[in-house]
Amino acid sequence: MAIINFDHISSNPLLPEVKTAMIDAINADYHNPSSQHSAGELAAAQLDKSRTAVADLINCANPKEVVFTSGGTESVNHAVKGAVLANAKKGNHIITSNVEHNAVIRSLKRLNGQGFKITSLDVDRHGRVDPQAVADAITEKTILVSIMHSNNETGTIQPIEAISGITREHNILLHTDAVDSVGVVPMDVQKLGVNLMSFGANTFYGPTGVGGLYIRRGTMIWPILEGGVQEHNKRAGTENLIGIIGMGVAAEMARRKMDERLTHLENLKAKLLSGLSQTIEDIIINTPADASLPNLVSVSVRYIEGESVMLMLDDDGIAVATRSACATGSLRASHVLLSIGRSHADAQGTLVITFGIENTESDIDYFLASLQKVVKTLRDISPLYQKKKNEPPTDRI
Amino acid sequence: MAIINFDHISSNPLLPEVKTAMIDAINADYHNPSSQHSAGELAAAQLDKSRTAVADLINCANPKEVVFTSGGTESVNHAVKGAVLANAKKGNHIITSNVEHNAVIRSLKRLNGQGFKITSLDVDRHGRVDPQAVADAITEKTILVSIMHSNNETGTIQPIEAISGITREHNILLHTDAVDSVGVVPMDVQKLGVNLMSFGANTFYGPTGVGGLYIRRGTMIWPILEGGVQEHNKRAGTENLIGIIGMGVAAEMARRKMDERLTHLENLKAKLLSGLSQTIEDIIINTPADASLPNLVSVSVRYIEGESVMLMLDDDGIAVATRSACATGSLRASHVLLSIGRSHADAQGTLVITFGIENTESDIDYFLASLQKVVKTLRDISPLYQKKKNEPPTDRI
Repeated sequence: MAIINFDHISSNPLLPEVKTAMIDAINADYHNPSSQHSAGELAAAQLDKSRTAVADLINCANPKEVVFTSGGTESVNHAVKGAVLANAKKGNHIITSNVEHNAVIRSLKRLNGQGFKITSLDVDRHGRVDPQAVADAITEKTILVSIMHSNNETGTIQPIEAISGITREHNILLHTDAVDSVGVVPMDVQKLGVNLMSFGANTFYGPTGVGGLYIRRGTMIWPILEGGVQEHNKRAGTENLIGIIGMGVAAEMARRKMDERLTHLENLKAKLLSGLSQTIEDIIINTPADASLPNLVSVSVRYIEGESVMLMLDDDGIAVATRSACATGSLRASHVLLSIGRSHADAQGTLVITFGIENTESDIDYFLASLQKVVKTLRDISPLYQKKKNEPPTDRI
Repeated sequence: MAIINFDHISSNPLLPEVKTAMIDAINADYHNPSSQHSAGELAAAQLDKSRTAVADLINCANPKEVVFTSGGTESVNHAVKGAVLANAKKGNHIITSNVEHNAVIRSLKRLNGQGFKITSLDVDRHGRVDPQAVADAITEKTILVSIMHSNNETGTIQPIEAISGITREHNILLHTDAVDSVGVVPMDVQKLGVNLMSFGANTFYGPTGVGGLYIRRGTMIWPILEGGVQEHNKRAGTENLIGIIGMGVAAEMARRKMDERLTHLENLKAKLLSGLSQTIEDIIINTPADASLPNLVSVSVRYIEGESVMLMLDDDGIAVATRSACATGSLRASHVLLSIGRSHADAQGTLVITFGIENTESDIDYFLASLQKVVKTLRDISPLYQKKKNEPPTDRI
């Protein structure tokens, strides 16, 4: 049975063009791009080509501002730890939000253990950071603000431009974790005004294990991987050239097809949202109507466990997530959902539905029918739901 | 013109079996191994299979002791920085050697800037560390010894077993950078007695941008990439599954074909060494006769520049290196060659000739003929060589 992938945020399939480019690269046996003989130069030309394609996708002033990494997690660790440690003489204070990905949270926790102070800002019920709160949190010791561009569990897009207006005024570095935005929505580092931006290739149908870090020229930052002179001395290690070639092709396709993809995804999202509200009662849509990703819908299905829904949908050939794949195995409720005001129970009953360019309207129909059936089955055996049914209606939601 | 690769240390071609496995993986569109649905489980099974193959290659007690990384450089940075920072409460002293790869040197330089003390040991004229010197350098503050297994410029293999006898006696962690050894010579972490061992897939004809770090159970170490729960919480980030699948196949082939490959490489090495001494005068072989890599010969060709030799050999379709590809662009003489007593001039006249399983005896003949011609051309225009020819013979070498 072919699986319907509504868990694109965990893994996007490779584009056919990306597959072809990667297979060609495998068969080409490229040499080391750092080698000075002609075999090395051939490899270096491929590396440059990919770097330019990625730089074009995010409107870099210079392709050298793109550093290839092993993925979004490395980019985030590099940006956060590298910027903080390189600027430790200027101060020891970092501002972030309560809804960041664990890559940011754990990097900051590590820095906290080394003496740096962290201010983590609340978000509103849409999961949004108030730029004024960033301004209010700034002290003379602040050296970095790290706020994600879009949230991987709710799809909320943050007001990064407004925040960068503030950080630039105070001459403080701004990093944005844009792993779920780059290649999905138009991203322009000039407009955004960020100093550092993390992203991954798989978000735009390139391979996993490859990513990029935008480092604006002049940004003080330490590498986290040190050794050779690769990546203009910003990231050591022989490059994953096959993956980088795939990322380059995926970046070029994402730029060229951006509008077409957005239209398709927004149609699917509208259909899914209206279908959910029509077919299932007692749900909460966690994804804000405005300024959110076009390919993500988070829904809390009350009175049941998201994990049970996920497993039963799996039996129907549908892949869906209950939370970030990076948090698999955690028994705690999502910190993101708690931050936007969900109860523990509702957080545990949440599905993160992420779809992609190959999904169709009939996939949405199939999903909705399957979900309706699964929810009914689970609610029929849910003591919470039976209790609720026997109570008079409230206007709590 | 097909290129004869005598620069295998910069880049090994992929095995046909590795190519097939990677292409199959590309076409399989594996999902995220951390996802809990069945598509995720299929991917996780592939990850496990590769981990077991790699663990078998180095004789791990448990496959979970293998952490997949983005390559040897990440493994080294993780091992050195992660072990030192995690054990900082016990002491602040690290012992290393003067001939390490820049990944170790620069990681230690970074730690030195953060207050850690480094003792860097001399090597003998074969490039070898004396285990007694390690013992003598140990203080109450020593928390890590990091000595490479084999040197990437001379091929010298270090007496790691003897060193681990000392570190274990003192209860100090031992890391070995084995990037140029794992998959080339038999490696057994039980015999070696190391706590940490870094290696890369490309050394044994797997892809670049993938590597492993052996972390013996119970070793106190911090991750350097933090975020999700991947790699048993030791290394965050969605895996480069295509690359890891390639690495697994390459590891299995390396284990199965180890003896056959060693015989082939040792034959080529013997032929090259005898050919060099027969065809070119005034050379110094930097690779020790005993306990050295079977696939590397370092030769200093006196009175000429290695870079000119490299470029002229390139015109004849031969790829060769003058030093580590990771140090491309550096104008300084190799720290490794200076450490074993070469002069600046002789260090600059050095070729690192590394061959592989696909090279043949006729490749060696072709190389020797080309090198002889190139050396004659360059020496004919070398003022140093003309001066030497007009002087009475000395026994300096």
